[in-house]
Amino acid sequence: MSVKSVKLKTTLRIEGSLLLVMAVSMLPPLLIALAEKEAASLRAFMLVIAGCIVLGVIPFILFGPSQRKIKSRDGFLIVSLSWLVASVVGALPFLLSGAMSSFADAFFESVSGFTTTGSSILTDVEVLPRSILFWRSFTHWLGGMGIIVFITALMPVFGINGQLIANSETTGPTKGKILARFSDQSRQLYKIYIAMTLVQIILLKFSGISLYDCAVHTFGSVGTGGLSIYNDSIAHYNNVYIELVIAVFMLLAAMNFNLYYAALKRGPKEIFRDEEARFFLLVVGVITTLIAVYNWIFDGFEAIGEKFMDSFFQVSSIISTTGYMTDDYDVWPTFSKMMILLLFFIGGCSSSTGGGIKAVRVLVGLKLVRRGVSLKLHPSRIAPVTLSDKELGSDATIRVSNFIFTYLCILLLGTLLLAFDGHDLITNLSAAASSLGNVGPGFNLVGPTMNYSFFSDFAKYTCSVLMIVGRLELFTVLALFSRHYWNPDRVN
Amino acid sequence: MSVKSVKLKTTLRIEGSLLLVMAVSMLPPLLIALAEKEAASLRAFMLVIAGCIVLGVIPFILFGPSQRKIKSRDGFLIVSLSWLVASVVGALPFLLSGAMSSFADAFFESVSGFTTTGSSILTDVEVLPRSILFWRSFTHWLGGMGIIVFITALMPVFGINGQLIANSETTGPTKGKILARFSDQSRQLYKIYIAMTLVQIILLKFSGISLYDCAVHTFGSVGTGGLSIYNDSIAHYNNVYIELVIAVFMLLAAMNFNLYYAALKRGPKEIFRDEEARFFLLVVGVITTLIAVYNWIFDGFEAIGEKFMDSFFQVSSIISTTGYMTDDYDVWPTFSKMMILLLFFIGGCSSSTGGGIKAVRVLVGLKLVRRGVSLKLHPSRIAPVTLSDKELGSDATIRVSNFIFTYLCILLLGTLLLAFDGHDLITNLSAAASSLGNVGPGFNLVGPTMNYSFFSDFAKYTCSVLMIVGRLELFTVLALFSRHYWNPDRVN
Repeated sequence: MSVKSVKLKTTLRIEGSLLLVMAVSMLPPLLIALAEKEAASLRAFMLVIAGCIVLGVIPFILFGPSQRKIKSRDGFLIVSLSWLVASVVGALPFLLSGAMSSFADAFFESVSGFTTTGSSILTDVEVLPRSILFWRSFTHWLGGMGIIVFITALMPVFGINGQLIANSETTGPTKGKILARFSDQSRQLYKIYIAMTLVQIILLKFSGISLYDCAVHTFGSVGTGGLSIYNDSIAHYNNVYIELVIAVFMLLAAMNFNLYYAALKRGPKEIFRDEEARFFLLVVGVITTLIAVYNWIFDGFEAIGEKFMDSFFQVSSIISTTGYMTDDYDVWPTFSKMMILLLFFIGGCSSSTGGGIKAVRVLVGLKLVRRGVSLKLHPSRIAPVTLSDKELGSDATIRVSNFIFTYLCILLLGTLLLAFDGHDLITNLSAAASSLGNVGPGFNLVGPTMNYSFFSDFAKYTCSVLMIVGRLELFTVLALFSRHYWNPDRVN
Repeated sequence: MSVKSVKLKTTLRIEGSLLLVMAVSMLPPLLIALAEKEAASLRAFMLVIAGCIVLGVIPFILFGPSQRKIKSRDGFLIVSLSWLVASVVGALPFLLSGAMSSFADAFFESVSGFTTTGSSILTDVEVLPRSILFWRSFTHWLGGMGIIVFITALMPVFGINGQLIANSETTGPTKGKILARFSDQSRQLYKIYIAMTLVQIILLKFSGISLYDCAVHTFGSVGTGGLSIYNDSIAHYNNVYIELVIAVFMLLAAMNFNLYYAALKRGPKEIFRDEEARFFLLVVGVITTLIAVYNWIFDGFEAIGEKFMDSFFQVSSIISTTGYMTDDYDVWPTFSKMMILLLFFIGGCSSSTGGGIKAVRVLVGLKLVRRGVSLKLHPSRIAPVTLSDKELGSDATIRVSNFIFTYLCILLLGTLLLAFDGHDLITNLSAAASSLGNVGPGFNLVGPTMNYSFFSDFAKYTCSVLMIVGRLELFTVLALFSRHYWNPDRVN
């Protein structure tokens, strides 16, 4: 058996597994469609589930389980393909139920869901069937921890070695933690994710809102997604308790899940021993305060408490790359808007469900700036960069630089592609930054009270690609465009 | 004699030399004021010249020439201080002649001149005395090659070892070339600068405009400054020949002067053997074409030749960080505006009079992006980055990363400080980018047909600081804010 056919069979088996997982994942919305008597949605979910099962079992029938290992680099194609397949399959209920009329719209919404971006092409979400809205939010929860991670870590029954391909889907640059995810810790992390989900649902239930509302907004929070079932997002409830719960859980979901595991084993101090977590919380605290005080001054020194709550919610929502809204930051004074814009370039912590550049990379980037001054003073000595009191090798700092440059290049390219639509620079730039960082809202035409419906199909696909590229941390997708990837012999 | 007093005396002698150079530099505008019978300006220049001579000779009378060497790190303070002194002295004629009413305005204009930025706080330049306009443009020529370089390389009579402090004022990261500037080559480079100036004046004279017009616009071109004596900049002439001459000389001034020296010695091939020069010209060619074609399509397929000329002039003006204008790019379609915005982040070549991040650093940054993909495919191997077929060490790439990160951080900080004025994001961001990159115009309220007059004094000083920080390539000024700088014992 040739190497190529092993790769192909493994790929097909993984995609088959994915389809089966998708079929199971659509059972809850199907049950809701049944309970709510939503005929069109019910038919759509049944159709898609049936299709997934039929197509999903074929690879298992055709090829027996293979124990031959694939190379980790094969993961790039498998992971990229899986996200594409999940997004297309996830878009089908939107399309078949009649909730959305074009494939570009349904695909955008599905990608936005799985990548936990949370931007929407819908001008009125409240008219949609409840089963469709549930599915839309549930994709956040599924995508939060990663599609492949979901398949391989939760379903070892498929007989796939997840460790080898996990590197292609991870969030954050800290390699040790990534590999740990697939050992004994991986199940622990998933238990934390599920526990966090349950706790938030229970806490939200205390406010008196329906279990359905609790569930969809919890999926959006712990997955750092941001799609809501109301046109005015969380502002709909006008309830400080709900806002506080969601704001705190968005932050919790954007922090390193490994720290919670460590905290459970060795006490809560573990969280603050991590320099990334300290930096992340410091940024949240400082920017929340600056915005609150500036808006308070700007609004004639009124309602400081309200200003703090609004600031905290929006800061938590954007830095965690969720995108829920309780206030329209696009009408805030320029200084406060600028603060929000900064958050678009930070994002969550590594090994969290948050997107963006990731706090740890920004932190290392800032340390490189400080080292630049030191280099000018002592040209012959390159001081090491440390993280959590450990020295970072030059390899690690080079990887961080590479990542940030690449991120900015893709951002510029995305902004340029969106410019073909002819809208203003801030709309294009913030739409690209929001998509690439998996945030959701942007500024101007894609501001917190707006949506992406007015974009051309080309712009919608551009955003969709940016979301997937951002979610897979750039290089997994970029590697597929390298001629070395397809001609590995040339470089070995 | 203590080390400190040597430092102080050397610093004062250099500042004294600077004042004497300033006095000599103000003779041409003084003569123009005399010829044009501009009484207020004449009195202003005489006053400032007299003051410069008196203050300038004091250090030479008080302290004899010292042969004790200063450390290269002492250069940070000397160079930063010199730019501040030059800017303040350069602002005095504007203020004393009554041409400008506030110090913030006069200082902004002077800094904009010396740093070759070319942004203005004047709403109507054409009402100004001709001697003042001449001085305003002449600061570009003086600042183009660097103030300290000017003093030390052209005036060894002051007995100052320029080589030790040159590193603080250089443009571009290529160290070998920088040091060479002060050996035999330094005079050659100045000869090239002067020859380039004379050739452009002669070429412009063929168009029939006055020698005065030729001179001021040549200072603005070869210094990559951009201050004009007309409200509508170069569009005033409406003459393709003049536009072409200026566009070409802006590009020439933004390329590495060492290459011209090499080309004179070993033939013009030398220019194209330099990878930075090839990259720079490639960017100019590609972006000129893209903008021209896009604007041509956008305007209903009319006047392709004119579109190319407009595109070429604006691209040349922005990438060289000059800022002369023949067309308002702020009314171009979004895609073309986005292309112009890209140029704000590239800038001239190293060892040129151009500003910005510098083409070579952008090139290395792009190579780091490519290497990022390669690293993902071959995690254990870090491929070397090459430049002009030579391998760049990891030190060099780290320095480039440090620079770009620091540049972006200062840009964000500057944008944030400008946000206190309350204008829109694009105005703030482009004003900060334009000031830091020494370009001149920006977008929206600071677009090509606008000026900086509406800014608050705080915003004007912010821009002035950004111009100096950008001109001195960040770290010279930043180092002064490091506690290690003032407490060197602590780190040695």
